[in-house]
Amino acid sequence: MSEHTYKMIELVGSSHVGIEEAVKNAVSKAAIDEKNLRWLEVLETRGHIEDGKIAHWQVRVKIGATLD
Amino acid sequence: MSEHTYKMIELVGSSHVGIEEAVKNAVSKAAIDEKNLRWLEVLETRGHIEDGKIAHWQVRVKIGATLD
Amino acid sequence: MSEHTYKMIELVGSSHVGIEEAVKNAVSKAAIDEKNLRWLEVLETRGHIEDGKIAHWQVRVKIGATLD
Amino acid sequence: MSEHTYKMIELVGSSHVGIEEAVKNAVSKAAIDEKNLRWLEVLETRGHIEDGKIAHWQVRVKIGATLD
Amino acid sequence: MSEHTYKMIELVGSSHVGIEEAVKNAVSKAAIDEKNLRWLEVLETRGHIEDGKIAHWQVRVKIGATLD
Amino acid sequence: MSEHTYKMIELVGSSHVGIEEAVKNAVSKAAIDEKNLRWLEVLETRGHIEDGKIAHWQVRVKIGATLD
Amino acid sequence: MSEHTYKMIELVGSSHVGIEEAVKNAVSKAAIDEKNLRWLEVLETRGHIEDGKIAHWQVRVKIGATLD
Amino acid sequence: MSEHTYKMIELVGSSHVGIEEAVKNAVSKAAIDEKNLRWLEVLETRGHIEDGKIAHWQVRVKIGATLD
Amino acid sequence: MSEHTYKMIELVGSSHVGIEEAVKNAVSKAAIDEKNLRWLEVLETRGHIEDGKIAHWQVRVKIGATLD
Amino acid sequence: MSEHTYKMIELVGSSHVGIEEAVKNAVSKAAIDEKNLRWLEVLETRGHIEDGKIAHWQVRVKIGATLD
Amino acid sequence: MSEHTYKMIELVGSSHVGIEEAVKNAVSKAAIDEKNLRWLEVLETRGHIEDGKIAHWQVRVKIGATLD
Amino acid sequence: MSEHTYKMIELVGSSHVGIEEAVKNAVSKAAIDEKNLRWLEVLETRGHIEDGKIAHWQVRVKIGATLD
Repeated sequence: MSEHTYKMIELVGSSHVGIEEAVKNAVSKAAIDEKNLRWLEVLETRGHIEDGKIAHWQVRVKIGATLD
Repeated sequence: MSEHTYKMIELVGSSHVGIEEAVKNAVSKAAIDEKNLRWLEVLETRGHIEDGKIAHWQVRVKIGATLD
Repeated sequence: MSEHTYKMIELVGSSHVGIEEAVKNAVSKAAIDEKNLRWLEVLETRGHIEDGKIAHWQVRVKIGATLD
Repeated sequence: MSEHTYKMIELVGSSHVGIEEAVKNAVSKAAIDEKNLRWLEVLETRGHIEDGKIAHWQVRVKIGATLD
Repeated sequence: MSEHTYKMIELVGSSHVGIEEAVKNAVSKAAIDEKNLRWLEVLETRGHIEDGKIAHWQVRVKIGATLD
Repeated sequence: MSEHTYKMIELVGSSHVGIEEAVKNAVSKAAIDEKNLRWLEVLETRGHIEDGKIAHWQVRVKIGATLD
Repeated sequence: MSEHTYKMIELVGSSHVGIEEAVKNAVSKAAIDEKNLRWLEVLETRGHIEDGKIAHWQVRVKIGATLD
Repeated sequence: MSEHTYKMIELVGSSHVGIEEAVKNAVSKAAIDEKNLRWLEVLETRGHIEDGKIAHWQVRVKIGATLD
Repeated sequence: MSEHTYKMIELVGSSHVGIEEAVKNAVSKAAIDEKNLRWLEVLETRGHIEDGKIAHWQVRVKIGATLD
Repeated sequence: MSEHTYKMIELVGSSHVGIEEAVKNAVSKAAIDEKNLRWLEVLETRGHIEDGKIAHWQVRVKIGATLD
Repeated sequence: MSEHTYKMIELVGSSHVGIEEAVKNAVSKAAIDEKNLRWLEVLETRGHIEDGKIAHWQVRVKIGATLD
Repeated sequence: MSEHTYKMIELVGSSHVGIEEAVKNAVSKAAIDEKNLRWLEVLETRGHIEDGKIAHWQVRVKIGATLD
């Protein structure tokens, strides 16, 4: 079990709610195509500003998935 | 439209509520002087501890604003 | 007062709720042994994924404590 | 519109002409399979030298594409 | 002469022509307000893609200016 | 020949034997789907510990493959 | 008191005496325009050499100031 | 189980045999005082040279241990 | 002798005199508990500013000590 | 053939024309003394500014040359 | 004895056997011209792939040598 | 004059007095062989500890010299 190989994919998730939600949105998208997601790492947190307010958060994540 | 120049300013926002709120406080301050804020990048997240608890969060952000 | 020496300890806190809670859990653990915690710095944010969802967040923090 | 998820792909483009051309070649290749390329980031610029001259430039880029 | 103090400002310049032109555009903007620009450092090179082609380059620069 | 475009993929290989074997396992997996692997770069070396001993090594690699 | 917002400015100070003096010169310049300087971080230490000797030190600092 | 807190300790292990052995020596030392070692990360690999040969390897590792 | 294991500890030393003194203060504190300090690495140099002057320097150091 | 050893040299090339030309100037200088230059990596791109315009570009490169 | 000056040289060593052997090959080459090699630091580990297998390892090292 | 090429050399200077003196010692050594030293950059500051005190400082510097 311990000798798995993992592949890493990189996504940017967005949300107008907050940082965790942006990450969750990225994971949900990744889960459509990849069945064996195992962990994620946050690489970068950004925000889009409109009218002096944060309109949505954008979080770049790297996600590890087990290769069969 | 695509050939804008942007200036970047760097602020540290604080909040006793959480990370997103500390960022929002920094953006609100920046919005007083700068009309055309466009995006932000989180550079560093810290917290001040008192009596074994997080008294407030401090988040360093870089904010991009359109020139002219 | 200003010439304190601080020691830095590094912990990884976890939470199924969110990033701030994972940090708080790390600080709470550190506060059991160290009386004079002063500040924290977030080094890394990760998440463990199960069934295509984030099962818990893992946040690595460095915490500064006053010596004597 | 603002809550898109993006995937990031990483390519190395080459050109004997210059740095911009190497980037363009990478983007052109990426555009064959991906319809919604949105932005690129230059990660690394290298050059292959033959007979004391730069034979071709190699530029590593990360390219963001809208999912769905 | 050697004991000047410099201030650093950070800008993002854009151009549909190329990387050097994006830098030049940032320097031109900076030169309007600051009389004593002395040097620049390229921090990041990005590009905006439309229809599978690079629509414009965006280059982040830090510019040093002599304080009187 | 010199104007190839390469795509980069990122994998984590594992082995209970050692670092080189973990890398080889990642390359072997990548070679199943990609015919034109050209080079690899080691990004990170980790180990899983059980009962005070290293149970297996985990090495993160980036692998470059020629696009036709 | 803990929910201040700070702005960060970046300067390069010089001195023919030494590193601390170069930093002090930068802080003195910053203090002319900004009333509420709170802390500094050294980013880079360089020296200018003439006739095989260090003619002056140049230290890049980031300085945090309280926004009212 | 997933909400553990981990503490990180940093060691430099040595060996005249090779890199993996230097890491194992560090883990063995750490295992004397800490019962719940879980993973390690290699931070830096160095070697001491005598008479033009590598006399021993020195590998800096960070080790994570479960706090009860 | 060459196959020692070292542990690394991280401290922040302070001084109103200068950078070297802040480092020395950190080493002196560390020497109270650890008998076999061998080397230090400066990680970060900061200063606390009061009334437009540097009130004290704060230097973060990592210190290596031989494990018996 | 594949078991060559390479030495790396670091140069800063300059040009008033552009970035590629600054790199080429560095390579040309290196080629006078070293016969077997094989590749280069761009480390840093700077520009010297006079009268609000870029007077020349300065590009720091690392160049690899085959030994023997 | 403690006030030596060291010069650092940077090499890339290769081997089809493994990482340590690639480092040893670089040190052996360096030892031909430099009599007082003292230590090395591994900067980067890469591998060249042929037919889906690692044909040889390439390790970039920085080597410190005492100046007389 | 502005289109010089510079070569960079890397040295570690030592001193029992302090950081600036360690840098000066490195520059003095470099000045014996190189006539046109122009600037230096401090890369790393370390100290050797004996009997709980800093026996000597070791500072790694990169020095730029004009190529004719």
